[in-house]
Formats: sequence, structure tokens, C-alpha cells
Amino acid sequence: MGDFIAAAPPPRLRLGMVGGGQGAFIGGVHRMAARLDNEFELVAGALSSTADRALASGQELGLAPDRIYVSFEEMARKEAQRDDGIEVVSIVTPNHMHFAAAEAFIRQGIHIICDKPVTNTLNEARRLKEMAASARVAFVLTHNYAGYPMVRQARAMVQGGELGTIRVVQAEYAQGWLSQRLEDTGAKQAEWRTDPSRAGAGGSVGDIGTHAFHLAGYVTGLQAESLAADLDSFVPGRRLDDNAHIMMRYAGGAKGMIWTSQVAIGHENGLRLRVYGEKGALNWAQEDPNYLWFTPVDGSTRRITRAGPEAGEASARISRIPAGHPEGYLEGFASIYSEAARLIRGAQKGEATANDVSVPGIDDGFEGVAFIKACVRSNSQGANWVRLEH
Amino acid sequence: MGDFIAAAPPPRLRLGMVGGGQGAFIGGVHRMAARLDNEFELVAGALSSTADRALASGQELGLAPDRIYVSFEEMARKEAQRDDGIEVVSIVTPNHMHFAAAEAFIRQGIHIICDKPVTNTLNEARRLKEMAASARVAFVLTHNYAGYPMVRQARAMVQGGELGTIRVVQAEYAQGWLSQRLEDTGAKQAEWRTDPSRAGAGGSVGDIGTHAFHLAGYVTGLQAESLAADLDSFVPGRRLDDNAHIMMRYAGGAKGMIWTSQVAIGHENGLRLRVYGEKGALNWAQEDPNYLWFTPVDGSTRRITRAGPEAGEASARISRIPAGHPEGYLEGFASIYSEAARLIRGAQKGEATANDVSVPGIDDGFEGVAFIKACVRSNSQGANWVRLEH
Amino acid sequence: MGDFIAAAPPPRLRLGMVGGGQGAFIGGVHRMAARLDNEFELVAGALSSTADRALASGQELGLAPDRIYVSFEEMARKEAQRDDGIEVVSIVTPNHMHFAAAEAFIRQGIHIICDKPVTNTLNEARRLKEMAASARVAFVLTHNYAGYPMVRQARAMVQGGELGTIRVVQAEYAQGWLSQRLEDTGAKQAEWRTDPSRAGAGGSVGDIGTHAFHLAGYVTGLQAESLAADLDSFVPGRRLDDNAHIMMRYAGGAKGMIWTSQVAIGHENGLRLRVYGEKGALNWAQEDPNYLWFTPVDGSTRRITRAGPEAGEASARISRIPAGHPEGYLEGFASIYSEAARLIRGAQKGEATANDVSVPGIDDGFEGVAFIKACVRSNSQGANWVRLEH
Amino acid sequence: MGDFIAAAPPPRLRLGMVGGGQGAFIGGVHRMAARLDNEFELVAGALSSTADRALASGQELGLAPDRIYVSFEEMARKEAQRDDGIEVVSIVTPNHMHFAAAEAFIRQGIHIICDKPVTNTLNEARRLKEMAASARVAFVLTHNYAGYPMVRQARAMVQGGELGTIRVVQAEYAQGWLSQRLEDTGAKQAEWRTDPSRAGAGGSVGDIGTHAFHLAGYVTGLQAESLAADLDSFVPGRRLDDNAHIMMRYAGGAKGMIWTSQVAIGHENGLRLRVYGEKGALNWAQEDPNYLWFTPVDGSTRRITRAGPEAGEASARISRIPAGHPEGYLEGFASIYSEAARLIRGAQKGEATANDVSVPGIDDGFEGVAFIKACVRSNSQGANWVRLEH
Repeated sequence: MGDFIAAAPPPRLRLGMVGGGQGAFIGGVHRMAARLDNEFELVAGALSSTADRALASGQELGLAPDRIYVSFEEMARKEAQRDDGIEVVSIVTPNHMHFAAAEAFIRQGIHIICDKPVTNTLNEARRLKEMAASARVAFVLTHNYAGYPMVRQARAMVQGGELGTIRVVQAEYAQGWLSQRLEDTGAKQAEWRTDPSRAGAGGSVGDIGTHAFHLAGYVTGLQAESLAADLDSFVPGRRLDDNAHIMMRYAGGAKGMIWTSQVAIGHENGLRLRVYGEKGALNWAQEDPNYLWFTPVDGSTRRITRAGPEAGEASARISRIPAGHPEGYLEGFASIYSEAARLIRGAQKGEATANDVSVPGIDDGFEGVAFIKACVRSNSQGANWVRLEH
Repeated sequence: MGDFIAAAPPPRLRLGMVGGGQGAFIGGVHRMAARLDNEFELVAGALSSTADRALASGQELGLAPDRIYVSFEEMARKEAQRDDGIEVVSIVTPNHMHFAAAEAFIRQGIHIICDKPVTNTLNEARRLKEMAASARVAFVLTHNYAGYPMVRQARAMVQGGELGTIRVVQAEYAQGWLSQRLEDTGAKQAEWRTDPSRAGAGGSVGDIGTHAFHLAGYVTGLQAESLAADLDSFVPGRRLDDNAHIMMRYAGGAKGMIWTSQVAIGHENGLRLRVYGEKGALNWAQEDPNYLWFTPVDGSTRRITRAGPEAGEASARISRIPAGHPEGYLEGFASIYSEAARLIRGAQKGEATANDVSVPGIDDGFEGVAFIKACVRSNSQGANWVRLEH
Repeated sequence: MGDFIAAAPPPRLRLGMVGGGQGAFIGGVHRMAARLDNEFELVAGALSSTADRALASGQELGLAPDRIYVSFEEMARKEAQRDDGIEVVSIVTPNHMHFAAAEAFIRQGIHIICDKPVTNTLNEARRLKEMAASARVAFVLTHNYAGYPMVRQARAMVQGGELGTIRVVQAEYAQGWLSQRLEDTGAKQAEWRTDPSRAGAGGSVGDIGTHAFHLAGYVTGLQAESLAADLDSFVPGRRLDDNAHIMMRYAGGAKGMIWTSQVAIGHENGLRLRVYGEKGALNWAQEDPNYLWFTPVDGSTRRITRAGPEAGEASARISRIPAGHPEGYLEGFASIYSEAARLIRGAQKGEATANDVSVPGIDDGFEGVAFIKACVRSNSQGANWVRLEH
Repeated sequence: MGDFIAAAPPPRLRLGMVGGGQGAFIGGVHRMAARLDNEFELVAGALSSTADRALASGQELGLAPDRIYVSFEEMARKEAQRDDGIEVVSIVTPNHMHFAAAEAFIRQGIHIICDKPVTNTLNEARRLKEMAASARVAFVLTHNYAGYPMVRQARAMVQGGELGTIRVVQAEYAQGWLSQRLEDTGAKQAEWRTDPSRAGAGGSVGDIGTHAFHLAGYVTGLQAESLAADLDSFVPGRRLDDNAHIMMRYAGGAKGMIWTSQVAIGHENGLRLRVYGEKGALNWAQEDPNYLWFTPVDGSTRRITRAGPEAGEASARISRIPAGHPEGYLEGFASIYSEAARLIRGAQKGEATANDVSVPGIDDGFEGVAFIKACVRSNSQGANWVRLEH
């Protein structure tokens, strides 16, 4: 298994990072993911917008002094002038800074790996899409859950017709960590996520709802048409939603429900997807990611295991180790990076961006922002139905 | 444990049954439930509206020939005239016949155990409520899932404040048995449930949605105010909904989602309730009924077991056997019957109906019909929000 | 499903009971089991060897005064003289009284339902076997776990060759309720089970080990040849084993392990059986009894559900309700009773005892006593290998 | 969480590898593990004893041509002469080559990371222990399951007295991948593991039994005194055991069972440990490694999650990401590497080897070999009891 991943040849791609300095969570995840398959070497960073922290963070990571930046604009400009300048940048800042950073690097022809939601407005997302296309820059969005092998297996089974026409999609992303007013305790992760000026208009719908929304579409291939969203801020004083109930209608008649919550005590990172078709059904949970449960219409439920006897090529391509040896979150995240590497190497050779990887990109970013906007708009209209923009 | 149930003294209550003849599923369940705790003796029946089947069914059950009826009206009249006439009747017909049967027996002062949904219209439900009250007749509705010990445990924990103020309720009742057009194959259970003239206006929302709706209210004590329901008949040609997505708003600000489906392949009888409060959360599944999962806001998830060290009085009262010896569906159903017996014996002594049992009654029946009506009305208005009648 | 059970015709068999008075656990279980399918009517009892308790217990159960006995010998004699005397007796006393009681009733030609282990010595077991045969009396042993539908399914799959030749059997029966010195607290259930004069030579191996041993043989059809058993009494002062580690060798070369414990904190009634053959494997757990997990050698693990699409005739015959509606311990116990009824009715018509039921009998009782004896003998010889008597 | 791991400073340790060339499984695992936390840089290798494969493997990994070796003796000698020579070597060959390789590098004062079982004889293991001590070389054994955070949590809970005195240990390591004669199909992994000349005297007991044995001791701190082992080669023609049933006796009176199998269809990598003490019990499974189930003697079972509210310092030190984001096999393996780095850096500063890491070492290697030897000896004596050498 995992021939695709194992076959990675040297040399590694030169990687820069914007955000992800000391105290950040996701920056470290990106670095471990970039390292796992040995496709990237971190050589430059604008790791914080605070000069002291940017410097300390860069030193801790062993960056050369002249490649530790405070300003990402300066980093983009200077790296583009170096012979050994970065080939790709990871943008892992809070949401509101994604757009400006991405814009600066695309201008320099540097490939992009960016956290979601990609921007705070649809116009910005559209603008990035146009820029990336015209600059022939690869734009990878870290909808990392698409990097789990059994998510690929699910997607392949839907594509292969094993479920028949999809009728119902049940997606949920439940967490409990914001069930109390954590943002007042100095917890950095809670602070920016509950602050509209940094997180954007969506609270839980932006932070985790976009993942659930993306996963549903990624696996089923369904296009969302309209939704009704009932958002709440259950924790007193909170300015963004911490719970959302959403009904979905997809093109072609499938229906869905999405529940997203950060006040759901008992859930840690409870992303779950269930898909029901005419011929079968699938059930997958992020916290138990090596298993995919499949029920054919007239048979017993089967537990398909990663690298096991019924796991096909789509999952094998991003598996590293045998069945029964659990791969987790970092491996899934790393698969996004490794596919990004393949995409970038292809782009460097002038290949069209369409290829054999299934990594989320700027189009998914646009759809995610459209989802957040639709949720907020629906909620402001009494949780009634609104259409998503495309 | 189970002192309440174990202490049942003779003699047994004389029971009649309307419906539940050969070929019916739920009639046999009622009889086993009635038998388990030895509180009832079946002595009369109008088991079918078809004379032949009524006779054969009665003989098979060993009823005396003069107490096998074809007409429930006749049964009500004649039994009321006997010294050894029935004290209570179980009404287990398809939904559309509940009202007339209940009316006939209440008129004779005979206590009622009735399947849900109680009637097909709100007016009928209201009428039965008034009649039962004025006749001082006990009216028990077999929302049988309320008879599971761990449902009682959950209810007691909410009442005891262990969850704090409830914020979110997630209820689902998923089945897959109608994912194909079973009603055309001669399957009696599928036929009447998909026929508006017998099942009423609700398909899955009536048959199983009422259970999910009731369970949510039973455990949390929350009063539903409004809902938005998106109903589908995914199987071509089906006249009633086989899938429903419902968003709920409860008095006081709690929100809920209910998913009910009979096309959800992979689910057999997948009733699940999850409740999230400020201080803790609960998770219970009908298919694994002896466990209740509880997470306090700052602690690990705990598995509370029926008759185990953290199961309290409310569950112990309806437990029969020690922890680890699973009680199932029939035991839960039997607990409804045993509580009905207690209620009836109390009524026979002239006690007020308020007592220490927690058995669902005609009020719950009214609410269930209101739920169905609201779902259908919302759906016909584009799945927009409507208020429930009370 | 469940036609066999549903088809039970009146009149009911007249049942007596020895033991099972107030304070007993298993007596109530037998009565509920006897009642569930309406095959038996309890009409007589020697419910306690203490006169007061025998009387009070009989009254509470509504027995006629002249059929409440203190002495089982008297009961056997007098009931045999009545035209309406009992046809079958349930013996639910502590172990040491099984033999004398069984002997008394067999002498009168009364059929026997008896708890396990059947006797405290092999000679007694052999004697009962001979007596029952010569008196043409049905002798049913309540190895109740054989009454679970999915145990029947497992047995049928082994018999049908779906596992191929069996290689390995892993059985365990773990409980935690005796992890402290409960027998000193007045707990009746703990007292007699830890007292060699009442329980016999085996503690956990007798009380629960016999169940695990029987289940392994019942499902696989394998004949145990020898074993090595390492017994412990971990709780200070306890006189019988509360934990046993046993290695098994079966005829034909299969090997097994049995773990039995009553000091295994965290387990309530943790009976589990796993069987591995050349072509597939099975996994079943008593606490989750409606599921049987099957893995074919080259495929994914499948969850076979009671009354589900892959459950065959053997399980259907003792199922009462549809898939997803859990049947539990009492239903499984009741199936033993219902099969006993079929056996007795057959015997009453002069049919040979061989028939289509799969209910454990006196042969299984003998094997169970041989198992206990072998465990104790092996342990006394340094936990070395000994052969089982047959 | 994970401060220990996050704080790793540059520069990285220079790493060599013996074995692990193309076609090997575990070599790639070691490299990913070494990379994840950025503590090591692979700079030299004798990746195969076949010259062509050694060269191709080294090139694929980007090693400098002069640091690709065919002979590990040459590698040890030449690397020791370089200023930039390797500081540590990973030995990932089949078992029979561990000793000679380890000896060669210890002689040069190069630190060792070695796969298990450490050697094929006790004398060799003893010799390595003496050599490592005298050369002040760190010797880390990749009992990688000790690198799972929840294994550390379990160990800390036992050490902290939360279970009281341990009574019973149940360990099992079940796999099904050798249930058929895979070694005849050209499968490299199956070939050497079933060949006594390469794998040593133990089949499943050596390959996976040593892991189960080590894990039991690692978590409980118990010292094994004697065992009885019944080994089988169920697959016709197989020369080493593929199933083993083992009863254990530990110093102080605790008892254990170990089941190890490679013919257990349905298990992929089923390592499970359950520990029962006077005050509580623990349950952990490798395939679901982020959870540890704990039951206190008088309470409900609790699910302790990695990085969750009840996970303590011992697990937090080797956690990288928040609760609910599953860490898997590679992360656990990487923790062994990161602790090895800490140990080596300490040794380089002249610190005593005793420190705050809990990484398995040469002593564990000796015990593992003693375990294999005892199993084989017991089995050859009729599966009777033998003492382990220490």
C-alpha cells in the first residue's frame, strides 16, 4: 500500500509559512504534516505579526535569520528574488488574514496551501480563484478530513455506484470545548474563533461547519442548492454562533442535515458523515477514522478497514501502514500535503492542474464561504430557506 | 432492584384487546408485555374486523368463545354488562380506528391502553381527553420507549439538574425497512403504514417521528413551540413521507433537530436521543438500551448501566434483573403495562390519577398529533416555521 | 419470525417450583421466563426450606394454600397423586440441593427443568441421567445462554461449515461483583456461592465457568479432552475460587482458553465467545446479544443482526420481535422454557426425546460437572494438565 | 499538551539505518517516526545485505553516495571515523541479525535503536547489555506500543495506586493475516517471520507475543515468574507457532493470560490489555488507542481520552494534538524516537541514563527473549509450567 506516498523522490519542496508561531495550534500540525512524508523543507516564515514572537518562533524552528520575517508582504517579495526562495507557502493565520497573504504570494507565482475558510467574503474568494488561475499557481485548501483514506474509500464507493442515487446526507461536527466562556480566560484558540473581526461572520459554522459541509459534498459529489439555518450563541455574551441546525437541499433532490456545535459536551472533535442511497449506506466518524461502515440494501453492515480486504485503490494511495495500525489526524493532514506536493511538482513541469489527486482547492474554498454566508443570511431571516451562491 | 414490579399482588386485571389478530406484529408484543409481570389476564378480544380472522385469532389465544368478538362496539357493551367483564382494553389497531374504539370503551368506564399516534386529528384527541377525564378512566399511551429504565434514568438526571439548563436536543429515529417499495409486495405492516386512509397524514413522522418527539420531551421536560419540517417520499409512488428533517424550537430557548427516516439503510430500529445542557450531556440509543452515556462538563464520559452503581431509583423501579443481564424491548414495553396496572388499580380505589408512575397518557397523545400536524403543515408551506398547537 | 414460539397452543403446562422464594434472584427469572410465551402456569411450590418463607412466598405468588409446600419430597409425592398435579418442576435451589430434588420428582415421572451445575458430583449426575432415561422424563438444564437467537445462529454457522475446521476458541465470563468481600455483608447471593457446602467445589468455575464451557461446546460442537486450570481466591478469606485461567484442548486438535472471574471490576455479566476456524471467525457477547460478528477469511467483518437479513432459521425459531428491537436475557431464558415445553409435550405423546429443539439437558449437566472437577483437580496438581471424564 | 515534544531544538541527531530497504515494511515506519518530531536526520544506511538493493534504496532516500553501505560492519567503522558520522543507528533487520549489528555499532560508541526481539538467545542479549553499559551507549528497543499516550496514562494510574494491588492481567495480540499459507506466496513479511533461521525459535510468541508480554509488564510493573504455554502451528507445514495460549504467574501473586495468534481471522492488529486490581480496572486496545477505559470498584466505567479532562501528565508529554484528533501508530512510534533523542542528548552530555523518559531498553529486550525461551520450553514439556530466566 501507499506506493504513491512511498515513492516521493528528493529534493524536497522549499516551504514558507505565514502564521503558526508560538502559541498557535494549527501551525505545528502543518509542520508535522509537511514533514511526515518528507516532501517539504521549511525554510522561511512570517510566523507572527508580532516582531518578537516572529523572531523567537523562527529561531526555535531553526530558520536562517535572514528568512525570518515579520511581514508576509516582505517575505513574498524577498523570497521571490532568491534563487533558493520558497516554492510554496502555507497560510495558517486566523481567517481574516488569509486573503491578503494569499494575494501577496500568488502575485509572486508562489504556490499556496491555505487554511479554511479561505476568505471572509465571496468576492475575495472569487478574486483569489481568478488570480491563481492566471498565475498558474496551485491553490490547496486544507480541508484535511479529505485526507483520510476511508473518506477516499467512501467517495470512491459513491462514485462507483455502490450506493445508487443518494437520498439523504447526515453530517455533524460536534465539539464541547466552547461550552463555557473560554474566550475570557486568555485561551488564544477560543479568542479569535469567537471574534467576528478575526473569524468572520461564522462561529461554529465557519470553524467546523465548513468542514462538515465540504466533507458531505466531497464524498457524495452533491451540489448544495439551498439551506435553512438556525444559529445560536448559547454561551451568554458570545458574539458568534456556537451551535447551528441546518437543513440542506441538494441538486437532484437529495436532502441533508448538518449539525455543528461547540457547546456539545461529551464531543471532542465529533465529525461524522452518514450517507444513504437507494442501494446502500455509509457511516464514517473522524474519531475512529480507519473504519468505514457500509450496508448494502439487502445485507448486513460491513466494517471496511483501511488497508483491509475491501479497501480499494483510492484509499490505498494515501495509506502508509498495514491494516490494524491506526493512522490518525496527522497522517490525514500529511496526505493533503503530499498531494499538494504532487500538484505543485506537476505545475512546475507545466502540467495542467487537473490530475490524479483529489485535494481540495480554491473552488472548495469558494463554496465554503458561500455556505457560511448562506447560513448567516438564513438565520437573520428567521431560519428560513435561502439559496447558496455559486 | 425492581421491588415495584416484583411486589405485584394478585389477582390480575382482566384485559381485552382490539386489533392484534393473526398477522399483526404489535398485538403479540402487547400480549407478551402484559404477561411478563403477571399483572393482566387476557380474557376477551375483538382481534380483527374480519370475522374469520377474529374467531381464529381468539381461539388460538384460548379465549372463551363468548368473549371473542368481531365488533369492538359489541365487545364494549357486553363486557361492561358482565360481572367478570374486562377492566381495561388494549387498542392496537391501525391508527385510524383508535378514536372510535377508545370512545366506545371509555363510555363504558373501561380503562384504556392505546397505541400511538392516539388519533388522526387534534379534535379527536381533545375529545378523548375530555371523555377520559369525565369518566375517570385511566388512559395510557404506549410510547413504549418511555418504559426503558435508562430513559427513566436520563429523565431523572435532567430533573435533578445534572445537565443544567438544556441547550440542544438531537433526536433521530432511523429505519431502513421501507427503502424499497415493500408496500407492493403484500407486506401488511408496510401497507397500512404507507396508506393515508389508515395511517393518517404522517408517514415516518407519524409512525416513528412521534416516538422521537415524545422521547425528547419526556426526558428533557421541554415544551415544543415551533418547527420547520422538510418531508420526502423518496420511494417512487409512495404517498406518505418516508424521511423527514425537522428543526425544533422549544420554550425557553432550547433548540432541537429530529431526523426520522424509513429509507435509512443500515438502521433497523435506530431511535437515539442526545441531550446537551450547560453542565453535562446524555446519549442513549434504543438498540443498546441498558446503557446511558453521561458526560459532565469537566469530566470524562461515563457509561451508566442499568442496575449499575450510578443508576438511581427511577430506573431501578422498572428493572427486573441485575446489571449485565440485558433487558430489551419487551421488558420496556412490559413496564408500561405494569405502570398502567398500578394506575388502574389506583383509579379503582378512587385515587387521583396523579401518582408515582411516569407513564405516557392522553396528553402525550394530543401533543403527538399536534407534532404530526405541524410537520405536515410546515412541509406544505415550503418547510418553513410553524407553531405547534397545544 | 418466531413462528415456533408464536404458535404455542393452550392449555398451559402445570409447573411447580423448588426454591426461588423471597430474596432469591433466579426464581423470579424462571417465573418470568415461564410466563413470557404463555406455555406454563405456576401452580405449586416448595419455594423455601424455611416454613415461614415458603408460605409467604407462595401466597405472594397466588398459589393455592394446599399447593404451598415446605418439603419438596412431600410436594413430589402429593402432586403426583393429584389429577391436576404438576407436569414439570423447576429446580432453582442452591447447587447442593439439585440432586435430591431432581431424584424425588423423576421418581414420580415429573419432568425436570434444573439450574446448573446439575449436581455436585459426577456420580450424582450419572445417576440422574440414568433415572431420567428410565423414567422417560425430559430433563432440561438452564444453560440459558443457549437460548439467545444469535448463539443459535453461531451454532448453525459452525454446523453449516462457514468457519471450516475450528482452530481456536476464546471464551470468557467476567464479573466484578465479588471483587470485595460481599459474602460478609449478608448478601444472600454472595453467601451461598462462596460456600463450598452449598456451591460445591467450584466457585467462579462452577457458577459461571460452566456457562462459558457449555457455550463453547454448544456453538462449536467440540468435545473437551483435557485442561489446565489455575484457580485463585483473590479476596482474602474466600474459600472458593473467584478467578480461573484455563487452557483447553479439544478432540481433533482445536485449542481454547477460558477465563472466568468474579473479581474483574468493570464487567457486569461479561460472557463472551470467539471462535476461529480455517474459513472464518465469530464473535458474540452476552451483554450485546442481538449481534453476531462474522469475518470470512478474505472479507470484512459483518454484523449479523437478530432477525436481520443474514440471520437464518435457527435464530428465527426463537426470535419474537423484529430486528432492532432488542431481545434480552429474559427472552433468551424464556426460549429455554418454550423449548422445554415442546420437549415435554412431545414426551407426553410418547415421542422420543430427540427432536428439533436444541435445549441443553442432562448430558450437558454431566459435562459441566466434569469440567468443574477437572479444574479443581488440575489446580490442586499445580495447574497442570488433566483429562476430563466423560 | 506535548510541550516535551514541541520543544525539541535543533540541530537534529545524525541517524543511520541497518536494514529497511525496498520491500521492507518496518524501515519506512522507523523513518516516518524519526521524521515526525524533527529530531533526527537520516544520513547513512546499510539498507540491505544485497548490494543492488542497498544502493537503490539509499539513492531513493537521498543518501550521499559515500554513505550508502552494503556491510553494516563497514558502516560502523567508517561512520565512526567521520566528523559528521552518525550519532545513532536504527537496526531494523530480521531478528537474527540484530545481535551482530548492535555489537558492531556499540563498539564504535554509537547509540542504538533496535527492533524486538533484541536477539535470538539470552546470552546475546546479556552480552549487549554489558557492552552498552560499558560503552555508555543508549540502547532503545522499539516496543513501540509503549509510545501510545494512553499506555502511559495506564502505567501512571497503576503507579499512582488507582487500581490498588493488581490481581489479574489479560493480554492478547491477535492477527489473522497468517491464517493461510502466505509464506508460500512470495510475501516477504510472511517468509522470514515463519522461518526459524531468521525469526528465531518463536513464531507468534516472538513476533507479537513479546509485545503483549512487554506491554503487560510495562503498564503493571509486574515481574513474570513462570508460565505455561501451549503453542500450535495450525497452518499445515508451518514451522513456527502461529497461535499460543499462555498462563502467567507474576511475583507477588498476580496471574495473567496471554493469547497470541496470527490465525485469528477478523483481527488485524488486535493488541489489547486489560488489568484488574483491587480498586479498579483498565482496558486499552491498540486499534482504538486514544481511549483508556477505567472502572473504579464502586463506580461506572469512564472513557479517559488522550488530551482529555482526565488524562494526566504522563500521557500529555507524548501527545501532539488536542483531544478528538486521533493520534495513531506512527505517532506512538515517533514518541519512542523522540524519547530516544532525549536519552541520547542526555548521554552526550554525560548524564546518567536514568531520566524522565520511559522508553523501553536493553533490559526489556532481555526479558522478551526470556519470555520466548520460556514459551518454547514449556510447550516442549507438554505445556507445563516453567520459570522465566532473569
